[in-house]
Amino acid sequence: MPPTSSQADGARVLADLNALRAIGAYKTGVHKPTFSEPHARSIEWLANKLPDAGLTALVDGIGNVLGTSAKAGPKLLAGSHLESQNYAGWLDGPLGVIYALEAARVLNADPDMPGAVEVASWCDEEGHFGHFLGSRSFVGAVSETDIDTARDRNDGRTMREALAAVGLAGRPRLRAVRGRYIGYLEAHIEQGETLESSALKIGIVTSIVGIWQYLITFTGEQNHAGTTRMAIRKDAGLALARFCVAIDDTFPGICGPRTVWTTGRIALDPGAPSIIPGSAKMLFQIRDADVAVIERLEEKLQAMAADVTAQGPCGVTVERLRTGAPAMMDATFQDAIEAASAEFAGGKSLRMPSGAGHDAQILATIMPAGMLFVPSIGGISHHWSENTADADIVTGAKVFVETCRKLLLR
Amino acid sequence: MPPTSSQADGARVLADLNALRAIGAYKTGVHKPTFSEPHARSIEWLANKLPDAGLTALVDGIGNVLGTSAKAGPKLLAGSHLESQNYAGWLDGPLGVIYALEAARVLNADPDMPGAVEVASWCDEEGHFGHFLGSRSFVGAVSETDIDTARDRNDGRTMREALAAVGLAGRPRLRAVRGRYIGYLEAHIEQGETLESSALKIGIVTSIVGIWQYLITFTGEQNHAGTTRMAIRKDAGLALARFCVAIDDTFPGICGPRTVWTTGRIALDPGAPSIIPGSAKMLFQIRDADVAVIERLEEKLQAMAADVTAQGPCGVTVERLRTGAPAMMDATFQDAIEAASAEFAGGKSLRMPSGAGHDAQILATIMPAGMLFVPSIGGISHHWSENTADADIVTGAKVFVETCRKLLLR
Repeated sequence: MPPTSSQADGARVLADLNALRAIGAYKTGVHKPTFSEPHARSIEWLANKLPDAGLTALVDGIGNVLGTSAKAGPKLLAGSHLESQNYAGWLDGPLGVIYALEAARVLNADPDMPGAVEVASWCDEEGHFGHFLGSRSFVGAVSETDIDTARDRNDGRTMREALAAVGLAGRPRLRAVRGRYIGYLEAHIEQGETLESSALKIGIVTSIVGIWQYLITFTGEQNHAGTTRMAIRKDAGLALARFCVAIDDTFPGICGPRTVWTTGRIALDPGAPSIIPGSAKMLFQIRDADVAVIERLEEKLQAMAADVTAQGPCGVTVERLRTGAPAMMDATFQDAIEAASAEFAGGKSLRMPSGAGHDAQILATIMPAGMLFVPSIGGISHHWSENTADADIVTGAKVFVETCRKLLLR
Repeated sequence: MPPTSSQADGARVLADLNALRAIGAYKTGVHKPTFSEPHARSIEWLANKLPDAGLTALVDGIGNVLGTSAKAGPKLLAGSHLESQNYAGWLDGPLGVIYALEAARVLNADPDMPGAVEVASWCDEEGHFGHFLGSRSFVGAVSETDIDTARDRNDGRTMREALAAVGLAGRPRLRAVRGRYIGYLEAHIEQGETLESSALKIGIVTSIVGIWQYLITFTGEQNHAGTTRMAIRKDAGLALARFCVAIDDTFPGICGPRTVWTTGRIALDPGAPSIIPGSAKMLFQIRDADVAVIERLEEKLQAMAADVTAQGPCGVTVERLRTGAPAMMDATFQDAIEAASAEFAGGKSLRMPSGAGHDAQILATIMPAGMLFVPSIGGISHHWSENTADADIVTGAKVFVETCRKLLLR
């Protein structure tokens, strides 16, 4: 029997999510890039909702929304993000924001509850202008110079221009008050098919994987595609293709059980049909919850590059662009989610790492953090067809609110 | 002993080539895209020079320059092109135009010579707006609609705008008068290292290779690069890399002695570092002088694509975009070049196919055609460092003028 104390209102949660879906709607999803007009309206929508949860709304100079409570007692920070990838799904981000809003509405008004849930929406989790800029600003990891140099990856617009366009230029940025929070809780769609394929309802995140990203550059010799005999070519594009295949043949033998690696972008230079590419570049990424595994794979990558260079005819260099450390989720938070799942999801929960990055990994650098997942239909995400069954959304909301209650009552 | 009759003036040829190099100079080469200001000035320069060779200059509505003679007797058409690839070499094109001009200067005024050399500069051989547009217009293969839809591959400007900008809009286009010419002769830098590596001075082109071009498309499933396990991925980029390697492993066993193939451009979609590519495309090209060889390779390509599709997880389609037929050079022209090489290049000539495309292949569709090559230092072309030794340029000019004489005297 679920407890009889105050619970999430499933209909209210679905109504709020659909209200956000209507702002910047695209097919069954949304197109809501950071600082677009629909994103700005979503921020305003949230700021107007927070007083219903007993919270004072603040929108800061980087587009973060924070609802703070004047209540005494422990404060639990909860939230996610409102902007979307281009032409993407309606739940990636808003789900965690609305769950947090619902938890605040249910618990902050409850006379039996100590403290409060405070709600946050972190700006630009989707990386239109940078890399977790909103949550990193909140933990003190973004300088004014970082903001000066940030540009929209779609159209090159500066972040300063974008902030001015939505009326946020010149506002101060909010910094976390150290010691104020017992921790941070975030809900998100899984973005994979682990839960769905096992008929589970709640993922209890144990860690968020580290992401190490590389620029791999191949140098050959640009020449005429008609007059240069095959035997004397130094085709950088072909060297790249062979390297991709070599990675795919080699990594499975030395990776961890959940390691993933991806070549997301390839460019040949000059990229003309009648010219042998003189240079070629690929963006390559390795993800694992275990840094030692990533280090081992990077070592192999460098050794493979050295071998190819030594054998010729092309040279290869591997440059690490990004070293995203894995983040461990707090054990107490994991236990609270598991206990809440036992009550509201029939115990259909699974402890699992997150292969995707989330703001929780940034908050985890300054406070205990936890995350829960709800199932993604077909594992689809970053596409407008992304979805979760309404019943699963409601189950997730009930588990989320109950987890907040347990954490505030500890 | 070379004959004592009138010969090419090497100093005059070098002076003219350097005058053209000074128009749109870039490092030791030129940047002279089609209908750029330096290209327009080069056209004007040539039109002003043609009267010195007893020719009446006409610049037509597609930027072709034609010098016509009022002399009786056989007419030999000779030329090449004046525009360059971007930031490319000074001789690719102008060499053949100045050789033709020099032949006209030397032979048209010679009272012992019947007929005349008529000089042509074909617009856009380098394909900024299309595919041999100038020479194809001259043979009647370009419609007004083709011109309406042509755009600059660099900046998307329409050809109509570009023609208006250089004052050629509305001019009529010149069409070849059938039966007027005994044939067409073109000189060009080799753009490869065959001549240089054998210390030869003249290449006698036997054929211009056929170029068949393909769009090869791989279809997988776009998904999140963090949450999608390796085992269930349908990575279109990886399928593309494996296909490139398979081509490179398979083709050498079934190609001809001089077949070449090139992947010049690769694009992954969406091309983001954290997204598994759902589709991928490559531009692929096969060149050979023998159509049967190209057909055999295309058949293999289709069979490989069918195999990959059948095995999964990605589908592959091979679409032929362009079927450029090989062109045979006229035997009489080849013999004339060989005889002239014996007199002016110490017999250091070689019969060889052209791996690159040239306007001569277009002219060859309506009249006998021939081509001669001079050596390229290091085989380099389509780069500003392209060059040929001055002495080799002068040798080439003497062979060219003598070839024209022999052809007019036949």
